[in-house]
Amino acid sequence: MAALDDVLDRVDGQLDQSLERLFAFLRIPSISTDPAYAADCRRAAELAAATLNELGFAAAVRDTSGHPVVVGRTDTGASRRVLFYGHYDVQPVDPLDLWDTPPFEPALKTDAAGHKRIVGRGSCDDKGQVLTFLEALRAHRDVTGHLPVDVTILLEGEEECGSPSLPAFLTANAGELSAEIALVCDTLMWDRDTPAITTGLRGIVHCELTISGADRDLHSGLFGGAARNPTHVLAGIIADMHDEDGRVTIPGFYDAVREPPEAVRKQWASLGFTAEAFLGPVGLSVPSGEADRMLIEMIQSRPTAEVNGMYGGYTGQGSKTIIPASATAKISFRLVADQDPEAVKAGFSDFVAARVPADCKTRLTFGEGSRAVLVPPESPDLAKAATALEQEWGKAPVEIGSGGSIPIVGQFKAILGVDTLLIGFGLDDDRVHSPNEKYDLNCFRKGTRSWARILEALA
Amino acid sequence: MAALDDVLDRVDGQLDQSLERLFAFLRIPSISTDPAYAADCRRAAELAAATLNELGFAAAVRDTSGHPVVVGRTDTGASRRVLFYGHYDVQPVDPLDLWDTPPFEPALKTDAAGHKRIVGRGSCDDKGQVLTFLEALRAHRDVTGHLPVDVTILLEGEEECGSPSLPAFLTANAGELSAEIALVCDTLMWDRDTPAITTGLRGIVHCELTISGADRDLHSGLFGGAARNPTHVLAGIIADMHDEDGRVTIPGFYDAVREPPEAVRKQWASLGFTAEAFLGPVGLSVPSGEADRMLIEMIQSRPTAEVNGMYGGYTGQGSKTIIPASATAKISFRLVADQDPEAVKAGFSDFVAARVPADCKTRLTFGEGSRAVLVPPESPDLAKAATALEQEWGKAPVEIGSGGSIPIVGQFKAILGVDTLLIGFGLDDDRVHSPNEKYDLNCFRKGTRSWARILEALA
Repeated sequence: MAALDDVLDRVDGQLDQSLERLFAFLRIPSISTDPAYAADCRRAAELAAATLNELGFAAAVRDTSGHPVVVGRTDTGASRRVLFYGHYDVQPVDPLDLWDTPPFEPALKTDAAGHKRIVGRGSCDDKGQVLTFLEALRAHRDVTGHLPVDVTILLEGEEECGSPSLPAFLTANAGELSAEIALVCDTLMWDRDTPAITTGLRGIVHCELTISGADRDLHSGLFGGAARNPTHVLAGIIADMHDEDGRVTIPGFYDAVREPPEAVRKQWASLGFTAEAFLGPVGLSVPSGEADRMLIEMIQSRPTAEVNGMYGGYTGQGSKTIIPASATAKISFRLVADQDPEAVKAGFSDFVAARVPADCKTRLTFGEGSRAVLVPPESPDLAKAATALEQEWGKAPVEIGSGGSIPIVGQFKAILGVDTLLIGFGLDDDRVHSPNEKYDLNCFRKGTRSWARILEALA
Repeated sequence: MAALDDVLDRVDGQLDQSLERLFAFLRIPSISTDPAYAADCRRAAELAAATLNELGFAAAVRDTSGHPVVVGRTDTGASRRVLFYGHYDVQPVDPLDLWDTPPFEPALKTDAAGHKRIVGRGSCDDKGQVLTFLEALRAHRDVTGHLPVDVTILLEGEEECGSPSLPAFLTANAGELSAEIALVCDTLMWDRDTPAITTGLRGIVHCELTISGADRDLHSGLFGGAARNPTHVLAGIIADMHDEDGRVTIPGFYDAVREPPEAVRKQWASLGFTAEAFLGPVGLSVPSGEADRMLIEMIQSRPTAEVNGMYGGYTGQGSKTIIPASATAKISFRLVADQDPEAVKAGFSDFVAARVPADCKTRLTFGEGSRAVLVPPESPDLAKAATALEQEWGKAPVEIGSGGSIPIVGQFKAILGVDTLLIGFGLDDDRVHSPNEKYDLNCFRKGTRSWARILEALA
């Protein structure tokens, strides 16, 4: 272990230089959703490729139909190969006036509790997290002259806009990208002191539902009481989606849902995960999910149906006495276990059709959808990574199912046939996607050290 | 009747000059909701006052806290006095590109069916309708040198923005405005050939209901299934407002509702008022109101609860996976008979409170509200006006309850102690408040003749 200790010392000793490299990456406003920043996205890709080449990779910026992808490989004939995925694009920064310092002028600040933070757009999501991995590679190389495993790196520039170009790229380059295990650094720790490995991700189905009645807005005095009001119809559908116990009522919705293994349920029960701790900070107190489930189940192993937005009729100041011509809801379903996106779409279509009056029209459109993903609990690589994390943090990592959805993980499984370990060092309060995004310096340093250990462990 | 026939001939003979005067009134863009047109509103008031003075009235433009009011009186010592109300302000004209000719360049056009129409903003609502009354006065005066009754005229300039200044003006000038009966010309005919007297108006209560959950939008992956979704709560409240038979479920809502007199119900049943005829033109076919009521009851003698608009969460393009922090609905109730706005507000407040989970917050604000208004069916003036209309049109007028609400009528009753006859000559297809507003030339001519007859009948 002498070599590993040297590597870890190197991580600590080079922290200032690592930060300089991160700041250079953060200064590029690689906002992928806004075409005005397309050149900046390419610039971020070029910087990443140059960094990889400097680390001994054969790396290049590769064009797609959208923002480019960076692929780099080492080919040293090591016994194993891992595929690392991250993204160099960042979220938009508005509202700009809520930032304490400019989003693309990264800075190191100390908060009231004495924690040093890297502040700036992308500091956590995902440039800072990507750099933990690259800096771990650098330390290994600096100390030992080589890497413990061969590594393929895939960095995309469209994660924040739904990765439209990635599936085709994976399919076209499946051979080049093949590996034994995929690693993703884009998730959170359990808390400031406790690492986590995300072993489950919920899938997702998006839809937009519009109910239309009359062919125009009607005067509610002249027509009120006689003409069907689409907002009422839509409200009825939304209200019907859950029963009084918080259970989704769409027929067949739970058919393919499985219970988590008993060991996982036991670990969950032991976490002391309370509504007060989870919901209190956002101003809530009563879990709204299925009445007979633990809170942690509600957000990790149970599927959901949520309205993300709705609108219809007059929404300006004051009042306008109309019966709206139409009403729309944006609804998304989080899927777990073996739930099939297509079956959920079909079930919801039938559910809606049964609730729309004869003379209303329905427009129901769905996004592509993704299945839930689970890392097999018996995976040896999962055990190795867990041990490495425990050595770094002094605590065993919590294996969590994330309520969120990272479609890339499903695509790695479906297209490349590879399982993914999701290990990230973000914290709940990192304000990802919000003004004043930050990444704790300690997370960056120990995240880098964690990857140094994991690479060694996987070898 | 020789004199009346001469007066009617005068109306017909002077039609071109009447139109010229109407066009001059229509050319003034007296849009009351937009402060940019304040000077035009005053200009319209001044033109109206000058016209009244020309007709032998003592008339003046009177300041209020908003746009001015025009008051004119004759004081000839006639046996009776009537109060006529109208408004000189008009609706905004956007979207301007949907107008076939400029809204404030009135024109006479002939439609495909050969009907001549006066086209322009305000042609029907309400400048054209006001002019039918003034031109009837003018014809009487031209032919006989006097008016059959003394007349007080009240024209306001804030009808299209809710008449905020009027109640105080009525209260401050109640003595000056007192009369035996009020006349309003701002309503519709039953159809092109059948006049109508509106003897009932529904009252109205406006409210805005906001349900708030978490103190920010939440990530629907991380919180979905655990955090209360305010759009679901709001949808539940809206869905609960009506039962399966279209009946409003708010406790006590129907307590003060009365059945219309049997004679009125018989007249309604004889009208052949069908869903096909009423709802078909707007693309609907199935009445949505109380299952055991006639369609005409639904819109005239029954109260309603309608969502006029609702919104919550993400309403832009595509999807955003959030649990919205809040959701809002604008809701209005149409009241009938003895329903008390305050009782309806209290009932709905309780109804909402019973449906909001412990950790959600409710903001429920109400407008002032107005009671329903009914002209007593036994009123002798109602009978006289009905006979006069039948003589002009060759058909007895239909006595209708309007589903709409005209708060001024309730204020006349409450503040001045006077009943109102609502007699108007608009048609369903006049596109009031919309681009290409029009007023049929025949409605203008026979409307003027109708008032000439009614003034004589009321003397």
